Amino acid sequence: MSLAQAFFAPRSIALVGASGDASKNTSRPQRYLRKHGYAGRIFPINATRPTVLDIPAFKTLAEIKDQIDHAFIMVQDVEGALEDCGRKGVPVASVFSDGFADAGAGGQARQARLVARARELGVRLLGPNSMGMINLTGRVALTVNAVLEMDSPPAGAASIVSQSGTMLGTVLSRGAARGLGFSKLVSVGNEADLGVGELVELLAADPETRLILLFLETVRDAARLAAGARAAHAAGKPVVAYKLGRSKLGERLARSHTGALAGEDAALDAYFRDCGILRVDMLETLIEIGPLLAGRRPPEHGVLRGRAPRVAVVTTTGGGAASVVDRLGMAGIDTAAPGTDAPIVDLTMGKKSAGYGAVLGELLQFPGCDAVLAVVGSSAQFHPRHAVEPIIEANAGAQRSAKPLAVFLTPQADQSLGLLAGAGIAAFRTPEACADAFNAFFSWKTPGERKEEAPLEWPKDIPVKGTLTEAQALALFASAGVPVVEHAVAAAPDYVHGLPYPVALKILSAGVAHKSEVGGVLLGIGSREDFESKAKSLAGKGEPLLVQRMQSGLAEAIIGYRDDPVVGPLAMVGAGGILAELYNDVVLRLAPVDEAAALEMIGQVKGLAVLRGYRGLPQGDVGALARALAALSRLALCPGRPVREAEANPVIVGRDGAVAVDALAVMKEE
Amino acid sequence: MSLAQAFFAPRSIALVGASGDASKNTSRPQRYLRKHGYAGRIFPINATRPTVLDIPAFKTLAEIKDQIDHAFIMVQDVEGALEDCGRKGVPVASVFSDGFADAGAGGQARQARLVARARELGVRLLGPNSMGMINLTGRVALTVNAVLEMDSPPAGAASIVSQSGTMLGTVLSRGAARGLGFSKLVSVGNEADLGVGELVELLAADPETRLILLFLETVRDAARLAAGARAAHAAGKPVVAYKLGRSKLGERLARSHTGALAGEDAALDAYFRDCGILRVDMLETLIEIGPLLAGRRPPEHGVLRGRAPRVAVVTTTGGGAASVVDRLGMAGIDTAAPGTDAPIVDLTMGKKSAGYGAVLGELLQFPGCDAVLAVVGSSAQFHPRHAVEPIIEANAGAQRSAKPLAVFLTPQADQSLGLLAGAGIAAFRTPEACADAFNAFFSWKTPGERKEEAPLEWPKDIPVKGTLTEAQALALFASAGVPVVEHAVAAAPDYVHGLPYPVALKILSAGVAHKSEVGGVLLGIGSREDFESKAKSLAGKGEPLLVQRMQSGLAEAIIGYRDDPVVGPLAMVGAGGILAELYNDVVLRLAPVDEAAALEMIGQVKGLAVLRGYRGLPQGDVGALARALAALSRLALCPGRPVREAEANPVIVGRDGAVAVDALAVMKEE
Repeated sequence: MSLAQAFFAPRSIALVGASGDASKNTSRPQRYLRKHGYAGRIFPINATRPTVLDIPAFKTLAEIKDQIDHAFIMVQDVEGALEDCGRKGVPVASVFSDGFADAGAGGQARQARLVARARELGVRLLGPNSMGMINLTGRVALTVNAVLEMDSPPAGAASIVSQSGTMLGTVLSRGAARGLGFSKLVSVGNEADLGVGELVELLAADPETRLILLFLETVRDAARLAAGARAAHAAGKPVVAYKLGRSKLGERLARSHTGALAGEDAALDAYFRDCGILRVDMLETLIEIGPLLAGRRPPEHGVLRGRAPRVAVVTTTGGGAASVVDRLGMAGIDTAAPGTDAPIVDLTMGKKSAGYGAVLGELLQFPGCDAVLAVVGSSAQFHPRHAVEPIIEANAGAQRSAKPLAVFLTPQADQSLGLLAGAGIAAFRTPEACADAFNAFFSWKTPGERKEEAPLEWPKDIPVKGTLTEAQALALFASAGVPVVEHAVAAAPDYVHGLPYPVALKILSAGVAHKSEVGGVLLGIGSREDFESKAKSLAGKGEPLLVQRMQSGLAEAIIGYRDDPVVGPLAMVGAGGILAELYNDVVLRLAPVDEAAALEMIGQVKGLAVLRGYRGLPQGDVGALARALAALSRLALCPGRPVREAEANPVIVGRDGAVAVDALAVMKEE
Repeated sequence: MSLAQAFFAPRSIALVGASGDASKNTSRPQRYLRKHGYAGRIFPINATRPTVLDIPAFKTLAEIKDQIDHAFIMVQDVEGALEDCGRKGVPVASVFSDGFADAGAGGQARQARLVARARELGVRLLGPNSMGMINLTGRVALTVNAVLEMDSPPAGAASIVSQSGTMLGTVLSRGAARGLGFSKLVSVGNEADLGVGELVELLAADPETRLILLFLETVRDAARLAAGARAAHAAGKPVVAYKLGRSKLGERLARSHTGALAGEDAALDAYFRDCGILRVDMLETLIEIGPLLAGRRPPEHGVLRGRAPRVAVVTTTGGGAASVVDRLGMAGIDTAAPGTDAPIVDLTMGKKSAGYGAVLGELLQFPGCDAVLAVVGSSAQFHPRHAVEPIIEANAGAQRSAKPLAVFLTPQADQSLGLLAGAGIAAFRTPEACADAFNAFFSWKTPGERKEEAPLEWPKDIPVKGTLTEAQALALFASAGVPVVEHAVAAAPDYVHGLPYPVALKILSAGVAHKSEVGGVLLGIGSREDFESKAKSLAGKGEPLLVQRMQSGLAEAIIGYRDDPVVGPLAMVGAGGILAELYNDVVLRLAPVDEAAALEMIGQVKGLAVLRGYRGLPQGDVGALARALAALSRLALCPGRPVREAEANPVIVGRDGAVAVDALAVMKEE
């Protein structure tokens, strides 16, 4: 029996700690399994009662004669229950009980012991602190989530993996109200063993799942999730994430809530992009976006090549269409209409005679757009069939080459939403979610290819611990292929060096990150005489100094490398000086990046417009900057990846060439 | 009979062009009036039928013996119908017919004639191109909006004025689905006569209205709306706007859709703020925010003084609370909880023993927060009474001093939403609208006071037309009180001037806005000799040149003044150089501003952090910059307001003082 079968479609389930008291959460799994048509065998384990909710109960797992495919553990003595599972040969156990990584350092240690023991016993674990799993297509409601009080939640082709157990109920109940069904819903809890990544892999292979949704507060195993996302992409299944922790406050809350590092949001954004995971900004977009993606591939492979995406719009309400179109504009998306300059086709109150369905049919085949938006007003509320029929017909009549279609209904119109869902058409309740879905769709990328690259040789004499001196950092950068400023280390007492004047002079101490703020940098020293006096006063106790040739150019940039604890190596580029920080004007990508990707990154830094001929300014050597960035990002290829963080700020970019005049490198090990 | 009575509560209505054919829009007003319990008399006007929908019809208005309070015009010959109204003494007519300002230049002229004639006749007009007015508290459904197919839409204390007729249906139907009722709903159409501003005035005086909502695509009469908003504020009625046209695309669409200039969004933002109008970002926030505001005043008068607002949160779902809190963080709002460092009080799955109501009651009185958020999970769906009762009780039990309360329900939970609405508690369907409402609430300002200020005398010899030369602009700025650089105009052939070296030299021609881009500025000229040769080559044909003393400082800023065609005079400050433009790092306020307001504006410019001691940099004279900005903004006080646009870029800010070294001024008249 495969893990997927035992986990999603067990033939027999043991409920460890099942209660017959309907007011208790621990009574729910048994009630829900039966209410929602579980066809396998249920074995309640209860130390004191002969039956639980009319099913014979067992004192212990060992008493059961039959094979148990999946145990659901709700008792405090999780460790004891796990031992029982091991002895009995239960392949997978879902643990509702909490008090593990969710409960501080002591809980973390307890969790580590639990997982280690589960590995020894060959039992796979979901949780702890998981609300369980719901398989609607297979009728297995193995959960404590009260959403299953609902009658007959609709089954569908979307599956969801969630780090919040309660949010499964949100997604399921909101989807059901508009006719959007689900296949599998999994609450991963603390992810001690089975994590989001492995579940995505299982769902990528699940024939009933065609779309994978993620509700995330953090990413605990980035490599595994990346592999899962790539498997899903290969299987033609889009993966969509709604991730919290975008703000500092949200990050703090996620940490307090999951016991895990939330990760910097910009880094996770780069990571999702690289994995080919679509990211939505709003909760309901996660529920509603499915039909827009079904059977689609990232649009970059189509006509989109650097230009703004274009949506064609037909509406029976000008204001309703405007509420979506305005937000499309805010996301850099444009509109287009066939044979007119008008932004949209407005059929409000019969202003034009053409039928809605005919216009929509034309838009779906219109080569001047990349997607179509249909907006419907009041009729969607009172005459659902009449209102949505032209849409369903136009969509059904369209060729396979038709554009992706989304519908926004302006009134409260649950029945129309249901009809559209039934026809496999994406329909949105709010203009914001509708625009969010278009934006996510157009930002969707094919997963980055992971090439096998030769390791980068670590330069001799450069330590792999601590913070490097600037001279060491410059040597490391140069060895990676970053052009660095001509420099020399000059020693007391005479500070002899062979560089031509003017030069810059810096203190060399490792660990002084912002030298200029502490007066540790002197620029534009024009003569030997001036140099000597300044060197002696700067050095103070006679330590060696770094001498650099003065460098000038058109603009300054910052390039960086960082081994993020959550997503791994990252390359960074931003405007130089304090702009990167003041305006958060930096762009991140997973490292290493090649020159083409580096160029694309540079193109997205607003402050580097000064290199791109902005306002008639001379053009800088953007290619050289891209090569420097790509070179620095190759620190990701050093054996053992000793570098935690490296940064050249500034790189001086000229008409011809780009040179790092400052270098900082901090190793992971102290 | 007052305008308000004739408009909102007419005792008799004539329906000009009423049809008995239920498939026609023109049959709707009569059907809706009767369906929704209109108690006055209805007079259909139909040229060919003796009765319309069982009511005796009249061929013309003139045939009617009774007084008509309000006519609803649906015929193409609007002009003829208006003449009839005038003869009959009908005080107000709502015009559904289109083909006026909504239909190009010809339509605009037609509209101007219509309004002029209406004034002569003493008939007030709503529209043209209006869907009419709905008075739910007074049972007058005088509209073609199909939303009134609905049975018994709930009445309430919120009224809405909308530039989109169809969106009234959206607001009404979505509100009704969650138990939120309305009093008056008005579709203003083209606002040829009765506009948004006057309607806000009427609603400010309307005893049944306690909250005024606006759906806007543009602002056609900023002064009148400002007056209306101030009247509403004085009456203790919050005014909330949802305005489209935030993006360039949305602006273009609004223009094509309303035939009016949409206005620059940042200028409108400054205007709304000055009027004390709250602005929401999402459509449903407009519907849901009401109870959060009822009886409240802008929070700036309370504890909020420069620090981030704080929301206390209690939840039965960690993920659900996080979905709101994360967005609060993105808006710069913090959380607080009594007696703990944890960001929220999480009662998920009975993790804490305290009862929900008890915790909520404590939070409502907690002095460490400015507002309270209660989040409820699945129970809101299946046990609405049980789930929302503790909230309703805690709220009812709270003292008058209790904090504003908002509720977010994570599942589909229409019944719970209705119960909360019934109890006057703000409840939100999406985490995004909930966070948006908090953000709007905390950003809410008391309307700015309009002081009587002495006019600014226009300096002698400065033209009031065209573009000024830089010397003239400097003189104008100086006369307004802006410190300007020491300068002189030097004339051919010898370009004599009395300024000490080094100096800067500029071409003087009016109309060259970006002199440095065309090589028209030479900096740092150190000697008379150097100056003479440069002056001669720069002048070319011997025209006079502007000589300025070289100025240095800590940072550059841009200050500006603009007489916006939509909202009127504006003051602007931003980071100097190209930063303001690259990063859109500017702050706008209605002009004139005083020094305190100018200081506040400067504090919001990110790039001017360099003046505020950022990263140990020396502090600049922010006060001097504020005084310069306030002085420039006094151009709003020039008699006749001849200046269209004025800008000093850069103002050089030093440790002591700020000096404009560049001046541009363009008059309205060419």
